[in-house]
Formats: sequence, C-alpha cells, structure tokens
Amino acid sequence: MPSTTRTVNVGLIGLGTVGGGVARVIARHHDEYLSAYGIDLRLKMASALEPERAAELGIAPEAFTTDWHDVVADPEIDIVIELIGGDHPATEIFESAIAAGKHVVSANKALLGRRIDYLGSLAAQAGVQIRCEAAAGGGIPIVNALEHALVANGMLTIAGILNGTTNYILSRMASEGLDFDDVLADAQRLGYAEADPTADVDGFDAASKVAILSSIAFHTRVTTDDVYMQGIRNVSAADIEQAREMGYCIKLLGIARKTAEGIDARVHPTMIPADHMLAGVSGAMNAVFAVGDAVGETMFYGAGAGSFPTASAVVGDVLELANGIASGIDLGPEPEPFPRTAPIRSIEDLETRYYIRLSVVDRVGTLAPVVAAFADAGVSISAINQLRDGDGTTCSVVFLTHTARERDVQRVCSALEALDEVASVASVIRIEDVDAWSEGAEENE
Amino acid sequence: MPSTTRTVNVGLIGLGTVGGGVARVIARHHDEYLSAYGIDLRLKMASALEPERAAELGIAPEAFTTDWHDVVADPEIDIVIELIGGDHPATEIFESAIAAGKHVVSANKALLGRRIDYLGSLAAQAGVQIRCEAAAGGGIPIVNALEHALVANGMLTIAGILNGTTNYILSRMASEGLDFDDVLADAQRLGYAEADPTADVDGFDAASKVAILSSIAFHTRVTTDDVYMQGIRNVSAADIEQAREMGYCIKLLGIARKTAEGIDARVHPTMIPADHMLAGVSGAMNAVFAVGDAVGETMFYGAGAGSFPTASAVVGDVLELANGIASGIDLGPEPEPFPRTAPIRSIEDLETRYYIRLSVVDRVGTLAPVVAAFADAGVSISAINQLRDGDGTTCSVVFLTHTARERDVQRVCSALEALDEVASVASVIRIEDVDAWSEGAEENE
Repeated sequence: MPSTTRTVNVGLIGLGTVGGGVARVIARHHDEYLSAYGIDLRLKMASALEPERAAELGIAPEAFTTDWHDVVADPEIDIVIELIGGDHPATEIFESAIAAGKHVVSANKALLGRRIDYLGSLAAQAGVQIRCEAAAGGGIPIVNALEHALVANGMLTIAGILNGTTNYILSRMASEGLDFDDVLADAQRLGYAEADPTADVDGFDAASKVAILSSIAFHTRVTTDDVYMQGIRNVSAADIEQAREMGYCIKLLGIARKTAEGIDARVHPTMIPADHMLAGVSGAMNAVFAVGDAVGETMFYGAGAGSFPTASAVVGDVLELANGIASGIDLGPEPEPFPRTAPIRSIEDLETRYYIRLSVVDRVGTLAPVVAAFADAGVSISAINQLRDGDGTTCSVVFLTHTARERDVQRVCSALEALDEVASVASVIRIEDVDAWSEGAEENE
Repeated sequence: MPSTTRTVNVGLIGLGTVGGGVARVIARHHDEYLSAYGIDLRLKMASALEPERAAELGIAPEAFTTDWHDVVADPEIDIVIELIGGDHPATEIFESAIAAGKHVVSANKALLGRRIDYLGSLAAQAGVQIRCEAAAGGGIPIVNALEHALVANGMLTIAGILNGTTNYILSRMASEGLDFDDVLADAQRLGYAEADPTADVDGFDAASKVAILSSIAFHTRVTTDDVYMQGIRNVSAADIEQAREMGYCIKLLGIARKTAEGIDARVHPTMIPADHMLAGVSGAMNAVFAVGDAVGETMFYGAGAGSFPTASAVVGDVLELANGIASGIDLGPEPEPFPRTAPIRSIEDLETRYYIRLSVVDRVGTLAPVVAAFADAGVSISAINQLRDGDGTTCSVVFLTHTARERDVQRVCSALEALDEVASVASVIRIEDVDAWSEGAEENE
C-alpha cells in the first residue's frame, strides 16, 4: 500500500479508437491507481482534430486543443502519448516531446518498426524513455516480458499470429469454406478490416511487429524493411481444405529466429500442425511464441487490437513511467538502441517443407515434365495429390516437398511456369518446422 | 548498449533441480548479461548439503558451503536466492537475509502462499525486496505481467492450469483411456510425479499459486488456506470419456475471481469446452488466463516446472534487481503487503452447472427417488444419461444440472448417498462458465 501520493500529468495526442480507450481507462481507473499505487494520474491535455470527440469522451474544454504543439509545450506534462499513427507529424511529436524532456508512449508500430534507432538515440541523449508495449500485440504484454521477465534467456525464436484482421479472415475462410475476397468484404462491413486493408492483408502490420519484437529479443537492429513479407491474398479455400485433410492449419505467422547464418525474419501464410497451440487461436485474437534457451516455449495470447486492449498496454506503460516519477526514482534514459550485430538472413536461404498447388492441363502425361522440373532443381517430392476439381481442361495437383531450400523452390516454380502442361502455380505455402523454434534450448534435468 | 559495467554478487541456497538450473544459467549466460545489460553477475557463494553436487555443477570449492548461514552472512552478496523449499529453515533464511539488508528471490510457493504478509512486512521495513516469479507458473512470466504490464487494469479473473504433474496425468488419462492410479504409477516411474504426490494431485501446489497470483491481481490478501481445494484422485476414465462425448475436457484448474460477494478462489477438476484454449494445453505444460477490465482475456503458456524454465524465472528476478543495483538506482523497499480488503467467498456460494455421476441399483424404478432428491433441493436437471457399464447389479447414470448453487448440490449429494437405490455418488465435477471470466470487461468501440 502506498504511503504517499503524487500527481503525474499526461498529454494525449490523438483521440481515435485507441486514444478514446486511453482517455476512458485513465478516467475510470483514477481512484484505483491512486489507492493501489499512490499515483494521481491526470489527463492534463488532449489533442485531436475534432473538438466534438473531446466532448464525447468527457474531456473538459480547457483540457482540449486542436494543436498538438500545445500538448508537448505544456511544462506540467511529464509523459506524452502519441496515438495518431503514420510518419508525420508523429515523428515531429516524438522529436519535440523528447526535446522538451518528456517521456513518450506510443502504439505507432509503422514508425517504430522503421525508425526506433533514430528515435531511441534522441531519447537516450535527452535522458528520457520511449515505451511501445502497444506497438506489438495490442494488449498482449510481450514487450514487457522480453524486456524484463525473460531477460535471463538467450532468445531463440519469436513467432506467432501478430495481426487480428488476417487471423479473422483465415478463421472464417476455414470455418465457412469461403474464399478470401468474400470474407474480406464481410470483414470490412463488420469493421474487422479497414476500407484500405493493405497494411493488414499484405503483411506490413505484422512485419512492423516482427521488427520491433526481434530487435528487443535478439539485441540487434531489425527494421521492417528487413522482414520478408507475403500476405494472404493468394490463400484459397482449396488450400485451407487441403491443409485440413493433411492435419494442418493455415495461419499468417510472423517469425523471427536467431540462426547461425543470421536473423531469419519473415511474415507469410504458414502451415502448422492442427494440434499446435497457435492453430487454436481463432478470430481476431493474437498469440506469440517466445522461445528462450532456458525457459523453452512460452506463449502469450490476447486481443491484438481494439480500443481497450490497446489502451491497457498504453496506460500500463504510462503507469510504469509514472511510478518512477511519483517515487522520485530516476528512471534513467532510454538505453541507446542496439546496433545491428547480426546479419539478416535472406529468405532464399530458408530451409523448410513446401506445399505447392498447381493448376495443370488435365491429360495423360502431364505429370512427367512437372516431376522432372522438381528433380532438375534438386527438390525432393514427398507426396502428390490430384484434387477432384477438374473442369475437363485443367485440374489442381498438390505437391508436398521434403525439406528444401527456398531458392531451389523458386527455381522449380519458374521452371513450372514455363511448362505448357502447367496453367499456373496457384499456391506456394511454407510448412513451418515448429520443432525448430526450440533448437538450442537447454535439456532439463 | 550499456556504457558501464558493475559486479553484482549472488548467493544461492539449495542446489536441487532448480538450484542446479540457476547455477548453470548464471554461468552459461555470464558474458551475455555483461554485454547486453552491463551486469557482471557472479555466483559468489552456494550452499547445499551435498558437496559433490557443487562439483557436478562446476562450482569452485571456495564458492561452496554446507552451511547456509555463510551465504547470508557474506557482506559482498547483494541478493540471496532461496531454493530449498519447505518452511524451515526457509523462513529463517528469509529472516536473516532481510535483516542483513539483502534482497531475496525465491520459488517457495508453499511458504509464500501462506506467509507473504509476514515476510513482505519484514522486507518493507528493512528496505529490501522479495521477488517470486518462479513461485507461480515456473517459467511463465505471469507475476511480472500482473505487477507491470497489466497494472492499468482492474483484474477480473486469474484461471488456469497451474500444476504440470496433474495436467500430465489428466492428459494421459484422456489420450490413453487409462485410470488415475495406473497413470500416476507410470508418471512416478518417469519422474513426472514425486514419490509422495500429495502436494500435486491433491491440489496444494496449485492452491499456493492461486493464493500468490490472486493477492497480486486483486490487491487483497489471499492465503493458501483461503483457497477451496479438491484434487484429481476421484476423476475416472469414465468421466473423461463422458466429458469428451459432451464436448468437454477435464482439467485441474486454479480459479480466482473478483465477485460482488468477495474473492472466489478454488482449485478443483473442472469441465471446460473442448475448443477452449486451456483444453489444448497438454502434458506437463501450464497456462494461465489473466482477464482484465481493459485488456480482456490474455493467456500465458509455458513450462510450469523443470530445471531451466524455473531457473529462467529466478534469474530474471535476479537480473531485475541486479539492474537496479548496477545502475545505482534505489530500488526502494518491498511495498507493504496488501491487507485483506475483500472477503473470501465460500465455495458453498458458487453458482455453476454440475456433472454428477451416480452408481445406482440397476432395476426399474430407480430413477424416481433420485430425480426427486434433486427436485427437493431445488436443483434443476438439464440431462440424464445412463452409461452402458452395468454389471447386472449396478450401473452408472450421469446427471447434468442447470446453474445451481454449490450448497444445494451438496444437499442433493447427501440425500442421494442415503438412498437405497444409490450405491455411491461416484463423481461431482463442476462445469466452469468460462464466459463469466470476462464479466465486467469493457466493450470495445
């Protein structure tokens, strides 16, 4: 129980879905924070472009401004929360808040995924901190776990479902047998997908989170541009059904592994065993495996987005900073960002098993040149399955490979595309070796 | 990247499975901690009763003692790790380490589950801290999440699989159709269960963890004695098979909920839907749901025991303390333990659905007095199913109830036991309303 209380003033820039959640969480929990932690947490000033939003959230007119400069310029504000997203003026908000000696809490994964080294250096030099729990996994406290509870470990793998929109779409495709376009349209109607769904369905959002999490986990700089990225637009109902028959499930995974050849960082549709914990994560929920050499496999599950879950992460960061400020403890500056200490491994060096679905000309003798193309590239086939979807002209054939190298599989695909017998290479989906995530972990006594 | 380094000396008392893991983790990661955090973490002195264990772990003779007093008396030691378990001399180790101004890290859930108020007060008065991440959920960083990342929330529920031995036994009973005694014997042979399995199979271990986690989550004192406890000895293969047919799975859950009538804290075999995330947690793994009013449902999954996972939690706590010591930041004393601010709700006030399996006399007319016993106590039946296990004399009949109050169900069972038609009340298993775990959470925009 706290013996003293102290006021900590917060400035909030952006009152959208998450900003509104933050304003509400701070208002509704004020008395709890006071009694449990001795922190009188006050939303001193909020800014947004629409004044009516402030009224809707119960923010008094004197605590509202349409100009974010008013927030960072307020000398009584200790912590600035940046929730407008995008590059500009978010970058300028970071710069001026840091220059004014204020800590910054942000959920801006796009910006932090690319520029944490620049912003982190600024903060380190100014003696303030940047907190970004909400930028990776919404309400799931994975950043905190990597920075604190799991620090005894050499981390081996971060892998999981890092985007709720795509998991919602894939879950509905699987449960209802629908195709991507139909579910996307419905998801947009229901508010689970944006009008412009690119950042989600093409993997940008998950790649930003992979960059942030792998930088923290592996103590080396990984930016969003380093992360190989492939979205879910090409995943079909037929692939999902085939996966199910083979005992697999298709998820858009973000994966980062520390390997002898460098950091393997990628986002792509992935087949995983149907009895794997990640296969049970449905709808808009997120889950991340964090595998350490001592702890082995851990997984963190929760809402990856949404007003209140994301606000939980933002206000959690605010309270951590406020606790230091209120107790008079010097929080110390942001540590200087880790430089790049490990190379990024090319996707071409990935070794895994592959699922390849071809649309082929439906006649005797088609298979011979196709199989030869695999053999020519040194890719070994483990199973072939012709689907019953023929229209008399073409039909689908699924090939599973033994472990192969990505660059060889790409050569196979190029060769197949050139064959008269092949109408198209319809799908190439990597089958993830989930056991490899724990390679290098200690054996227990 | 750290700019300065500082030595932090650790004393370790107990070199059993977990203590050995801690010694190995500290030795193997020394250089990583130095380069990543600027902490030169040294095992200055270890104590155990068997000197040969020190040699086995590569601990130099001058850093070993058979007398734990040597460890707490060493003025160069900043942090004492207590890993001997039990009440004595563990209590004396806490007392003398705290009196000597040293922080204490411990995995002693039995002691902390009952006496954290006493030990926490000692630490608060002495200006040192007690850390116990390893006491609840082995390597799963749930204590840290409740104390830091989730602090913005009013916590609603902590519920999960908190004991690996019982989850291993129930998983094998389910997958192999075996009875409890057979799996227990095999688990003991394989080292998954102790020679004296009481603490695990009767629920004491899980109850200690419920006490620790609910005290932290709800900011009120809950001790192990407050937690209703029922183990898995009476769960039969027949119950597991019946559950499966009904779409359920049986798990030993530890559950703590904040309700209007007080803290509902209990450990017992529980039926949960087969598609629930906890149903997918098999073998010796643990998983805990932590539900907050802002974040909604989160779940933490990992190894609940074992040498290295538990060492991960212990050394994580050590590094957090060491980081403060090395940076010269005053960590502040342990906060005074929360007093009891909410009553403990009696198990008799629980309202849920029940699965009741009776062994009844196999003849016409048996059902009428049985059904009357339910009606007399005001417990409404939702389904009756006679199993095909009759031996000509008796057979099993399963009753499912609508939501009923525990005390009424106990009255039903007493009345049934007294009937000539009932050979025995073979099983009473609570069907958990998992949706109620999120009651009180915010609705997202």
